[in-house]
Amino acid sequence: MNAEKIPDIIIGRLPIYMRALQRMSEKGIQTTSSQELGERVGISAAQIRKDISQFGEFGKQGTGYHIPFLLDKLRSILKVDRVWDVALVGAGDMGHALARYQGFRDRGFQIVMVFDNDAQKVGEKVGDFIVQDMSSLAETIRKAGVKMAMLTVPAVAAQDVADELVKAGVKAILNYAPISLNVPPDVKVQHIDPASHLQRMTYYL
Amino acid sequence: MNAEKIPDIIIGRLPIYMRALQRMSEKGIQTTSSQELGERVGISAAQIRKDISQFGEFGKQGTGYHIPFLLDKLRSILKVDRVWDVALVGAGDMGHALARYQGFRDRGFQIVMVFDNDAQKVGEKVGDFIVQDMSSLAETIRKAGVKMAMLTVPAVAAQDVADELVKAGVKAILNYAPISLNVPPDVKVQHIDPASHLQRMTYYL
Repeated sequence: MNAEKIPDIIIGRLPIYMRALQRMSEKGIQTTSSQELGERVGISAAQIRKDISQFGEFGKQGTGYHIPFLLDKLRSILKVDRVWDVALVGAGDMGHALARYQGFRDRGFQIVMVFDNDAQKVGEKVGDFIVQDMSSLAETIRKAGVKMAMLTVPAVAAQDVADELVKAGVKAILNYAPISLNVPPDVKVQHIDPASHLQRMTYYL
Repeated sequence: MNAEKIPDIIIGRLPIYMRALQRMSEKGIQTTSSQELGERVGISAAQIRKDISQFGEFGKQGTGYHIPFLLDKLRSILKVDRVWDVALVGAGDMGHALARYQGFRDRGFQIVMVFDNDAQKVGEKVGDFIVQDMSSLAETIRKAGVKMAMLTVPAVAAQDVADELVKAGVKAILNYAPISLNVPPDVKVQHIDPASHLQRMTYYL
């Protein structure tokens, strides 16, 4: 199986399946069908079967999917069968909320450091972390070998910080600033921009 | 032009174009090309031309797009040529961050009310708002005619609150809880789930 051959749109749906399966598993549900999973996530059963079959034969005709097995497979495919260290840059309101968010660990992530360039915030405690000065960002991230970052700085600062992160070896950035970042092709960026999400819905109202 | 005929994936790209165009406009840039816009947002020029041409002939061969004109058109298409009232439900860390976020207004949205079911939070000030008790949610939203909501309650409460919002007439929900919501077909839901976004990137690391 060549990783490059799976369309990105399919990769984007796997976390949605995983989230629903994890929730079913927490409720003690052991098996599911593509129909049932589809109803939970709002994606057709045929699409789910097709997406999952890209990676192997994980379900059985008639009995459906064994949830713990499928979860293991999906975790392994998405490489969250381990816990990834994440650097958080920007200790504003959103940074605070993320630093205190409890939903990362059991989905494969942990924030391990928090940076800000505001002298008033440096040294402050955010969640379990002492905010570090941005000037130490590149070296600290490189030494720790951190490959992922969440960016919650103002739009005007985001590109500069992204450049620093890339230089420090970061390969995946979750960007909360409402601008598109220019990064090398081997660096992945995902955006979280609530206004964009809202705008996507007003079209239908 | 029949709204139903434009694929949702195209609608989802329009806010990205608009965000980049708005940023160029703020910098005093008056015209752009699909090539330039494409480089900024990481989408091919051909795709951008194709997406925009679904709605009319907004660009000119050779001179490209006049940014204020294209922005006006996109705002009108996405119906953010007005300001939409939004109810915020959940006054935790994320709710606080959203209530104080300054990036909504100039993109077509304003939070107008905040709810929580925690007696300790009700009456507290969050951003410019006094947190209201969830028991008044349905009536307050219905009376105000609010059609959009942001949901930042814990996963275990999210479906019940979504049901309340739907009953109150809400037609678009931005869901920060890490579960898929079951809503009627005429209600739109968008998810913001940082762990899903991170998982979508680890595949490539």
